[in-house]
Amino acid sequence: MPTLALLRHGQSEWNKQNRFTGWVDVDLTDAGVDEAREAGRLLKAENIEFTSAFTSFQSRAIRTLNLSLEELGLLWLPVTKDWRLNERHYGALTGLNKAETAEKHGADQVKIWRRSFDIPPPPMTAENEHNPASDRRYASLAAHDIPVAESLKMTLDRVAPYWEAAIAPKIREGESLIIAAHGNSLRALVKLLMNVSDNDIVSVEIPTGNPLVYTFDSDSLKPSSARYLDQERATNLPALS
Amino acid sequence: MPTLALLRHGQSEWNKQNRFTGWVDVDLTDAGVDEAREAGRLLKAENIEFTSAFTSFQSRAIRTLNLSLEELGLLWLPVTKDWRLNERHYGALTGLNKAETAEKHGADQVKIWRRSFDIPPPPMTAENEHNPASDRRYASLAAHDIPVAESLKMTLDRVAPYWEAAIAPKIREGESLIIAAHGNSLRALVKLLMNVSDNDIVSVEIPTGNPLVYTFDSDSLKPSSARYLDQERATNLPALS
Repeated sequence: MPTLALLRHGQSEWNKQNRFTGWVDVDLTDAGVDEAREAGRLLKAENIEFTSAFTSFQSRAIRTLNLSLEELGLLWLPVTKDWRLNERHYGALTGLNKAETAEKHGADQVKIWRRSFDIPPPPMTAENEHNPASDRRYASLAAHDIPVAESLKMTLDRVAPYWEAAIAPKIREGESLIIAAHGNSLRALVKLLMNVSDNDIVSVEIPTGNPLVYTFDSDSLKPSSARYLDQERATNLPALS
Repeated sequence: MPTLALLRHGQSEWNKQNRFTGWVDVDLTDAGVDEAREAGRLLKAENIEFTSAFTSFQSRAIRTLNLSLEELGLLWLPVTKDWRLNERHYGALTGLNKAETAEKHGADQVKIWRRSFDIPPPPMTAENEHNPASDRRYASLAAHDIPVAESLKMTLDRVAPYWEAAIAPKIREGESLIIAAHGNSLRALVKLLMNVSDNDIVSVEIPTGNPLVYTFDSDSLKPSSARYLDQERATNLPALS
């Protein structure tokens, strides 16, 4: 039975500092490392025969994957890294403290930026020290593919074609996969998998380091089950349609 | 200028216990982890623009690569894992203590098994607990590709076609690569790169965690330079022909 495990990276330095992170390549905290290892142990207990793994271009997701594969005894799995699984780009908010941003722009405005489906935050300027355009890892991207700010919809618009082209075919062929990624790129995947409305997806919260495991009927992309492995830290999931 | 860094994994549990390891998936020791990180720091100081990395199917090499990429800030590099970069398969000697094996079979015999170019050790039996034939990571291999024992020559015979097909073309195209692998798969690569004779290659010792860096003239596979980054732990290298 094909299985898909979605894994949000463990706590990062900027999660801890309550800052908007987006495409900045912030590392895991020690607590985040522990979360990643624990996620690997939870997955190991499931005895899933994973065949391949996917992650973003960002260290916190890649390390989370590597640490969980280590616990799984599956470091040898093929791993594909792609920028389309990166976190939502937070534009000009990148690097700002969330509480300070709320004081400055008002809590309502920040809530719109954080929790609307299709309203992006203000764009990042070319001079912004966090602008990814000069980062060598994105040098092979077309200029128009490097975001200056993204709504969740814009994140979905880059995740969806990658899902269709690179990941979904493997599930249709019966493979079992791990995807280690980010709050919003995973939210995009949950929207696709569970057919969640634009309105409802913004309130889906995926906990860090808690594997969300889908099973599929053979050669279908309609999940037959969906559950978090750490039940105590589980959040509400949309109903399987 | 295309650059190639060869990196032998840091100390493993069985290196420490002086046991023949071969294809057994033994982990790094804490000292091995430190070596891997230090190798990453040495490489970082060189400012090489690596574009891709290669490693074996064995955890000690994969972790060495992951840890050094972490220090390099290059976790996003594409990594290709292939069994052809695995350590030499030590046959029936696998798991045995090297000193005890010398007592039992005589130091001369053990020296032949360890240091001849083309004499393999006795074959591993199908029942041997270390036999890789039942390991899921090798399930996609043809049965005749899974060794029962290898000489250095037999290791070279599987490393060479992989080098030609997967790695050498990238160097010809100007890429800079890291290969994290094992004492004997790297020895095979050194033989290919430096045109070392069958007689001479058996006495080439590649230190653990000490990056061996080659540069190439453009679109040639003839190295223009070869050096270890940690000069204090460097061993003699064959002359560049």
